[in-house]
Amino acid sequence: MKKFNTSPLSGMQELLPTEQAVFDQLKQNISDVYHHYGFLSIETPIIERTDILLAKAGGDTEKQIYMVSKTAESADSADQALRFDHTVPLARYVVEHNNDLAFPFQVTQINRNFRGERAQRGRFREFYQCDADIIGRESLPIAYDAKVIACIHDALKTFKLPKMLIRISNRKVLAGFLKSLNLSEKTSEISSIIDHAEKIPTEKSSAALHELGLNNQQVEKVMAFMFTHGSYDEIAAKLTEIMSDTTLIADGLAELKAVFDILTQKGTENCIIDFMIIRGLDYYTGTVFEIVLDDYREIGSISGGGRYENLASNFTDQKFPGVGGSIGLTRLFFVLRDANLIKIETKQPVDYVILPISEHEYKASFELADKMRGQGKTIDVDLSNRKLGDKFNRASKISDYAIVIGNDEVTSGQYKAKNLKTGEITKL
Amino acid sequence: MKKFNTSPLSGMQELLPTEQAVFDQLKQNISDVYHHYGFLSIETPIIERTDILLAKAGGDTEKQIYMVSKTAESADSADQALRFDHTVPLARYVVEHNNDLAFPFQVTQINRNFRGERAQRGRFREFYQCDADIIGRESLPIAYDAKVIACIHDALKTFKLPKMLIRISNRKVLAGFLKSLNLSEKTSEISSIIDHAEKIPTEKSSAALHELGLNNQQVEKVMAFMFTHGSYDEIAAKLTEIMSDTTLIADGLAELKAVFDILTQKGTENCIIDFMIIRGLDYYTGTVFEIVLDDYREIGSISGGGRYENLASNFTDQKFPGVGGSIGLTRLFFVLRDANLIKIETKQPVDYVILPISEHEYKASFELADKMRGQGKTIDVDLSNRKLGDKFNRASKISDYAIVIGNDEVTSGQYKAKNLKTGEITKL
Repeated sequence: MKKFNTSPLSGMQELLPTEQAVFDQLKQNISDVYHHYGFLSIETPIIERTDILLAKAGGDTEKQIYMVSKTAESADSADQALRFDHTVPLARYVVEHNNDLAFPFQVTQINRNFRGERAQRGRFREFYQCDADIIGRESLPIAYDAKVIACIHDALKTFKLPKMLIRISNRKVLAGFLKSLNLSEKTSEISSIIDHAEKIPTEKSSAALHELGLNNQQVEKVMAFMFTHGSYDEIAAKLTEIMSDTTLIADGLAELKAVFDILTQKGTENCIIDFMIIRGLDYYTGTVFEIVLDDYREIGSISGGGRYENLASNFTDQKFPGVGGSIGLTRLFFVLRDANLIKIETKQPVDYVILPISEHEYKASFELADKMRGQGKTIDVDLSNRKLGDKFNRASKISDYAIVIGNDEVTSGQYKAKNLKTGEITKL
Repeated sequence: MKKFNTSPLSGMQELLPTEQAVFDQLKQNISDVYHHYGFLSIETPIIERTDILLAKAGGDTEKQIYMVSKTAESADSADQALRFDHTVPLARYVVEHNNDLAFPFQVTQINRNFRGERAQRGRFREFYQCDADIIGRESLPIAYDAKVIACIHDALKTFKLPKMLIRISNRKVLAGFLKSLNLSEKTSEISSIIDHAEKIPTEKSSAALHELGLNNQQVEKVMAFMFTHGSYDEIAAKLTEIMSDTTLIADGLAELKAVFDILTQKGTENCIIDFMIIRGLDYYTGTVFEIVLDDYREIGSISGGGRYENLASNFTDQKFPGVGGSIGLTRLFFVLRDANLIKIETKQPVDYVILPISEHEYKASFELADKMRGQGKTIDVDLSNRKLGDKFNRASKISDYAIVIGNDEVTSGQYKAKNLKTGEITKL
């Protein structure tokens, strides 16, 4: 017999049913909060045209994308790939269907995406992202940036995690700041250095800036900038120290102020301005945010997103500004489990296992099962012909209660449930 | 500007939010019933090793499979493909995790699969399948075949469709029948002819049998066999007419009888034996079934499945017999909508749209929204700075009710909902 490797491919998450139940519950929690906020569900295909996916990607994306082809080649199978996020397909969707949508279009996508990243513990190549986006036509008020942040924060609150911190920045502030230092041309490289600064020693970041050709004063200012964080009022004061010309960043600061005002009115807690927040993807233009667990910074951000003013600009002349955020649930589930931070209780997946003694009790068992299912219970009827002990053993792995049905029970119509942990018997 | 094609790729279903809500509701209905029957959820990766997927596939599968590769080639990216069904990955999963599973293992997978079929109206390359399977270790009583059929039938009952008919056959009966005609060697070819017989004129089927080299008498018998259908009792009588040696098919008939006995006890209606049912896939070994809408045969089967005694045999020496069935929801949704048979009512996705008159009413709007969300309502707060008329227009596309909040409402704490269809105003 040929020997097959039956483990899932590297970078793919595969859970046992009990773990899957927890994962599904977390996913449902997110979905419920998004829907309560009025986000509408859509699903775009997993396979898209490669040119659509890569129209604005750049960076590592092109290297990580999974190309798709059929064994039997046909004309239309050439340029297809698996989507690497929900945002690019959403831009396509909005352009394609804009006449049928109500703007601002509040939309959620909770589904799998694919990136062929280098295999590494805790990195996944196939992963769930739970996105909430709001797309305007022509314009979209800054208040929606706050709405997305508040909604995602509320969704994560259902996880009952340790204290969360919402770190917010604005790309316009960075752009204005770099312009004031005559560094606009190096925006992309400097952004990348700031983006990675949290994970490496401070000296390495400043060394990288020096390598880029910044003089001592510029390096000092950029370092001071990236480590600037605090409440809006604190920041506004500090910024005047750092920046020579504050008028350049007036736009970005005004947007930050508006976002914070709304979040305050919304009662969203633990928000700070933090200029270390960049978000890697190039398409962000204004607000960017990340949510972290304040006492577990090492696990990285648990959500992030931002404003993209021009995402669909490659596909249309119309303007569809958007703001969105995402919870990377597969990675989040992995790190939370690793840090023992999943506190959600999920009961055993089956409410009752019915154990008919013999085939003579099948009919009564089916009737009882259907009646209880009608009451919303999950019921397993064990039809195997194994010993009762073996049946109890299996039952205890999927449920807390078993109902044995023999001739006596059928005759009397009286059924009893046995608690499989305590042995306690209760009448139904 | 480069011109992009923003339509989804051929063979991909992409729905508007209102249609998506109906689709999601049908999917949820199926999931609920499967769970009520005690099936546990798992998710296997969409990308699998090609040799695992093709270990037992054969037929068209190999031509239709989507191969996956990364742009930047790496050692492990060579032999990966998208799964074409849930059953093969399930076999791998059971072999890989069998020590952690409770057998009989009742498992459901509701997710997308991929087949690069020729593009054709109503054929999808990316499609949801809603599978329910039961896997035994060493053995699995025939009663579970009936359980899977009953469960899938109950799931479909929630769709409120016209009369369903459950057509059941057993591969052993066919094998025994062909053996009695000395046609065992042509089982595969004859199965294929029977499998397609319903869609073509009778003469073509008999011509195809003649072409295979069957003599007149054999053709006559096979034709009579494939058109045999009815209740168990009717069939048992007819079979003795058709078959020279009934002992050969005793096994299959006994299994059919057991399945029908259980279905009767379970109260599952409208079941017939029908020897035209083959199910294309080679891995079925006993029971095979399809569910059709009796008055809409032209839309094809709306579900199907069967018993596979040896599915994991390529991966392990252990025996894991299974039985399962599937609802192909993407295609089903398409044909039901086409035939105007979707009767599920879904309300507008948002319960209330709150319209603050200005930014001064944001705080009160957020408070009201959160309060109502806490009561399980879906609430959209419109933060756009468009005219009130435009806001009402958008609201009516996603909801039946709007709540306008101005200074008076904030001061009085009295809110009113406007029915966007009738204009009726009610106090909250």
